Amino acid sequence: MSNLSISTPVQLKNVTIQDDFWSPYISLVRDVVVPYQWEALNDRIEGTEPSHAIRNFRIAAGLEQGDFYGMVFQDSDVAKWLEAVGYLLERKADPELEKIADEVVDLIAKAQHADGYLNTYFTLKEPSGRWTNLAECHELYCAGHLIEAAVAYEKATGKGKILEVACKLADCIDAAFGPEEGKIKGYDGHQEIELALMKLYRATSNDQYMKLAKFFLDQRGQTPHFYDLEYDRRNGDTHFKSLRMAKDKSYSQAHLPIRLQETAEGHAVRVVYMCAGMADVAAATGDEELLQACLSLWKNIVNKRMYITGAIGSMAYGESFTLDYDLPSDTAYAETCASIGLIFFAQRMLQIEPRSEYADVLERALYNTVIGGMSRDGQHFFYVNPLEVWPEASGKNQSFDHVKMERQRWFGCACCPPNIARLLASLGSYIYSVQGQTLYAHLYIGSQITVDLDGSAVQFVQHSELPWEGNVRFELTMDRPKSFALALRIPGWCTASDVRVNGQPVPEAAKRILNGYLHLEREWSSGDIVHLILPMNVNPMKGNPDIRETVGMVAIQRGPMVYCLEEADNGKGLHKLLLHPGGGDRVRFDPDLMGGMLTIELPAYRIQEEGWADQLYRANAEDRLEATTATFIPYFAWANRGIGEMRVWVRENTALPF
Amino acid sequence: MSNLSISTPVQLKNVTIQDDFWSPYISLVRDVVVPYQWEALNDRIEGTEPSHAIRNFRIAAGLEQGDFYGMVFQDSDVAKWLEAVGYLLERKADPELEKIADEVVDLIAKAQHADGYLNTYFTLKEPSGRWTNLAECHELYCAGHLIEAAVAYEKATGKGKILEVACKLADCIDAAFGPEEGKIKGYDGHQEIELALMKLYRATSNDQYMKLAKFFLDQRGQTPHFYDLEYDRRNGDTHFKSLRMAKDKSYSQAHLPIRLQETAEGHAVRVVYMCAGMADVAAATGDEELLQACLSLWKNIVNKRMYITGAIGSMAYGESFTLDYDLPSDTAYAETCASIGLIFFAQRMLQIEPRSEYADVLERALYNTVIGGMSRDGQHFFYVNPLEVWPEASGKNQSFDHVKMERQRWFGCACCPPNIARLLASLGSYIYSVQGQTLYAHLYIGSQITVDLDGSAVQFVQHSELPWEGNVRFELTMDRPKSFALALRIPGWCTASDVRVNGQPVPEAAKRILNGYLHLEREWSSGDIVHLILPMNVNPMKGNPDIRETVGMVAIQRGPMVYCLEEADNGKGLHKLLLHPGGGDRVRFDPDLMGGMLTIELPAYRIQEEGWADQLYRANAEDRLEATTATFIPYFAWANRGIGEMRVWVRENTALPF
Repeated sequence: MSNLSISTPVQLKNVTIQDDFWSPYISLVRDVVVPYQWEALNDRIEGTEPSHAIRNFRIAAGLEQGDFYGMVFQDSDVAKWLEAVGYLLERKADPELEKIADEVVDLIAKAQHADGYLNTYFTLKEPSGRWTNLAECHELYCAGHLIEAAVAYEKATGKGKILEVACKLADCIDAAFGPEEGKIKGYDGHQEIELALMKLYRATSNDQYMKLAKFFLDQRGQTPHFYDLEYDRRNGDTHFKSLRMAKDKSYSQAHLPIRLQETAEGHAVRVVYMCAGMADVAAATGDEELLQACLSLWKNIVNKRMYITGAIGSMAYGESFTLDYDLPSDTAYAETCASIGLIFFAQRMLQIEPRSEYADVLERALYNTVIGGMSRDGQHFFYVNPLEVWPEASGKNQSFDHVKMERQRWFGCACCPPNIARLLASLGSYIYSVQGQTLYAHLYIGSQITVDLDGSAVQFVQHSELPWEGNVRFELTMDRPKSFALALRIPGWCTASDVRVNGQPVPEAAKRILNGYLHLEREWSSGDIVHLILPMNVNPMKGNPDIRETVGMVAIQRGPMVYCLEEADNGKGLHKLLLHPGGGDRVRFDPDLMGGMLTIELPAYRIQEEGWADQLYRANAEDRLEATTATFIPYFAWANRGIGEMRVWVRENTALPF
Repeated sequence: MSNLSISTPVQLKNVTIQDDFWSPYISLVRDVVVPYQWEALNDRIEGTEPSHAIRNFRIAAGLEQGDFYGMVFQDSDVAKWLEAVGYLLERKADPELEKIADEVVDLIAKAQHADGYLNTYFTLKEPSGRWTNLAECHELYCAGHLIEAAVAYEKATGKGKILEVACKLADCIDAAFGPEEGKIKGYDGHQEIELALMKLYRATSNDQYMKLAKFFLDQRGQTPHFYDLEYDRRNGDTHFKSLRMAKDKSYSQAHLPIRLQETAEGHAVRVVYMCAGMADVAAATGDEELLQACLSLWKNIVNKRMYITGAIGSMAYGESFTLDYDLPSDTAYAETCASIGLIFFAQRMLQIEPRSEYADVLERALYNTVIGGMSRDGQHFFYVNPLEVWPEASGKNQSFDHVKMERQRWFGCACCPPNIARLLASLGSYIYSVQGQTLYAHLYIGSQITVDLDGSAVQFVQHSELPWEGNVRFELTMDRPKSFALALRIPGWCTASDVRVNGQPVPEAAKRILNGYLHLEREWSSGDIVHLILPMNVNPMKGNPDIRETVGMVAIQRGPMVYCLEEADNGKGLHKLLLHPGGGDRVRFDPDLMGGMLTIELPAYRIQEEGWADQLYRANAEDRLEATTATFIPYFAWANRGIGEMRVWVRENTALPF
């Protein structure tokens, strides 16, 4: 084991986001999403599936009569909401919101058993079933979310009550699970407890939580297989009848010990939550073997199994990864939560080693799938984020049953909406990190931070024109000149970056590019200004030739934004469009389009139906092409103008060599 | 109602197939398939799912103890086998086979109830459940197959016993169902009884069977809905739990009265069996409205919902049609039985009006999907006939769970193998038909027939080089010169046919093309020879631009044969091949390839992986193309050389207009 030198994220409370693109999102989370979700958790949104999540706690706390209702992991929706509230309060006081949250904390505490156990499903529905179906029943998953919420809320408010609840719960788990004789050798079907225990370990410095996290990770996939043992003890009783959770080991990444796993298999959210926990433990312990397992899984995901939108999970069945290069656009599962989990994983890898590829993936998932998962009004959500939709087929071809044409108000399985809320509420903590005397800027989001470098405080004000233009400016303020490095990520989408300090080009000798970061190391003074110019071109992206779905096609990307065609701009039959390679582009900011949007127009051809009449197949038929313009909008903004076709990958004619 | 002038198929017993391509198939059915299936029906094939179909009859007949085993429609496998035996015996005596079949007839007769009822599932498993679950339980479907077998077997052998059984069964059904007070107003979930009753009507001239067929057809889709009524009477008990057969009315084409149905919906086999029955009744009664309904459904299927291989049914769920132009290649269901049913439908439409488009579709289904459904050894079968397979994804992406990479020895649901057997055993009856003084040649299959034209017998000997070359020769023999028309189908795949009589070109004035048939009307003499030349070109076929799956691609067809690429000839990654339009072709007969096969080589490019390393997406990447040759084999012969990739639709570069 070696010690890893970790770059530490600049804490949320020290980051003020001031950004044309992102500030409205943060306000939306504060003013709309969190209040809206509170209404949802209390079943006050008409015309949606009830949540019942708060009522479950009230019943478990003895404050109300009734039955448990909802998914076995319904508790986690409350926890994720509370975690988001913690992040909001960490940034900005809000006594009214804090009062509601305090009441939730009281309620959660009341629902906790004397021995620390806390889970409304088992308390109400299966009081004697505690820890009997780890493969399916999400007990430790719910516990993990409660712990994450507790850490966030305590950090924001300084109020210890919820952290005490969390510790008591963690201690209860620790008493039940572990390598010691008589303890359960199991682990949850849905990873989450591992990364949560690592947060609790960092919040409390109690080593036992880290050991328990590591135990859960290392126990996974060992034989004789725990899921078989507990399955037999239950006499084969199953909770989710339509899936083979206990028997299909790879569904929950339990097919192999995690250190031997080289490919991302099974339920996509579980994979990336597990990887985040693995990276946490590797970072804290310097466990090189565990880090290598993280790297293997990272590479497999981002080099073989990730959509260009940063989405993961190619298959609806099991919400799962499938195999290398299997990335169907129209039947994609591409769950919002999975991209959020990928961001968690990327952030942790970035802390272990600042490499721009981690931040590139983080940015890709954030600007495309994650914000695409929520409507611009903050009240409608996608669970599934396809790269192509054909509305006419909806309800007629079962392959598309999981694909919704419009964002939904809430879900019976409502994991995604509160996950978006907690991610956006904590967005500030993803922008910067500090490692020794180096400040890393990972994301270009207008913001103000104060960090300790070279022994005293330095203020950085970032101005960013992203995602529409690649101009970034940092203004530095400090008491006295200081020596440190500013490490600026050069995004993968930019091939010709330029940097100026106080208006002057930086000599080549002073530019050190390390793992995709431009390190500017010098003595800085108050008033120094750094300009980073990241020219944005319209990039026609190709997929690896091994991807069957994208061969002969391009996806348009500009800066971090992946673009798509919509029926609203291009009419029906988007598959009939053929891009004209090298035909020039027209980039235009449309301030009236969905709150301001940069659109891209490209010359194209459209195959005409003329001459086909009612024929289905014809011999030697030349395609009749008509010149047209294909209008692209950012992918994240799709499905905001009614139901219509959408597609990311568009055919392009190949230039033949001879 | 008007009387329809029907062209009558030349009867099987009068057609001797002598054809390089087809004779081996007929021998295979006689020498291998039918004996093999007899073994299967008796559970003597090792390593396959048991059939139990004969045992079910033995138990129902009281000859053995035991329980029913198998699908609710297991009886129909025995019936289809017996029907195939009937066709074989009609062509050629085989005392040994007839003895076995006579024993089967005795067995079936013993299993029949005194009142004529006959169904081993209900006899053994639900003796009190007769006619209580028509939506799901295939009672009338099984009865229909028994009737078809009876008609075929009686015709072949002249033995009346099985026809008596069938009439008794039909009378039992007639006593239970009908418009009269007190009778059941229902109809089977799986159509089959309708066309079977029409065969029985033609065999017995008993009008009542035609009336009953018409009743079943017209009752379908009426409201209040019979399936709801019987469902409620059963208190919601269902037989097939995973499908909503009773509630999803379109699954069994019961969503609308059949005369109002304009699109093919639901289970594909049911649709085409229904259409065959509709066409039978329309032909027999001159019911114009019913004929129009047939035409609407025909047009919808062949102009909007049929694969280029003549396969139908785009979706595994419900083995169903989906929507217009939804023809995915890799997740296709494309059941062998559905193409056989399409042939039944086409043959009946051809009898009502000889139009080459009916025979074109019949030929397309026959030469591609149907014979592709059986291995060259006659002992392995496909149920599902995809147009693209990616073996690596099998078992990893659930979308392909229904797709097998190799033909199977037998199936738990074994509808397809005996269906192929009965179709091929009766192939002779699809080649010719007679309408008044016109002999129609629908298929070019080497054969010898004797038919009555102009009052006495004329013998035609057809020599055909199809499917590999388009040379056909007819030799006529007759007592004395006679006047009649020989109507030769000009296939849709041929654009420059030529015809010669006794070596002389036929004057344009004497060539009358009517609905795709070239009518040669003259006084014929013994020794006359007609040459039909149907030049075969390699036809790159395009799909209608509304088909999303085929845009930018071509399928190679030559004559009736659709071709495909296989990994065995072209290596892995067939999607990386790009055809070079207009680059010339090389057609070659390989006598050693799977018993003799014409292959096609086309110049192509292959996208190279060079330069991609482990990247998944790249900006502005030019495809690196390497010139290569794409080798195509006939689609029907795929998957005979081990497991590998296959694809019918191949990318082709579009010629840009400017």
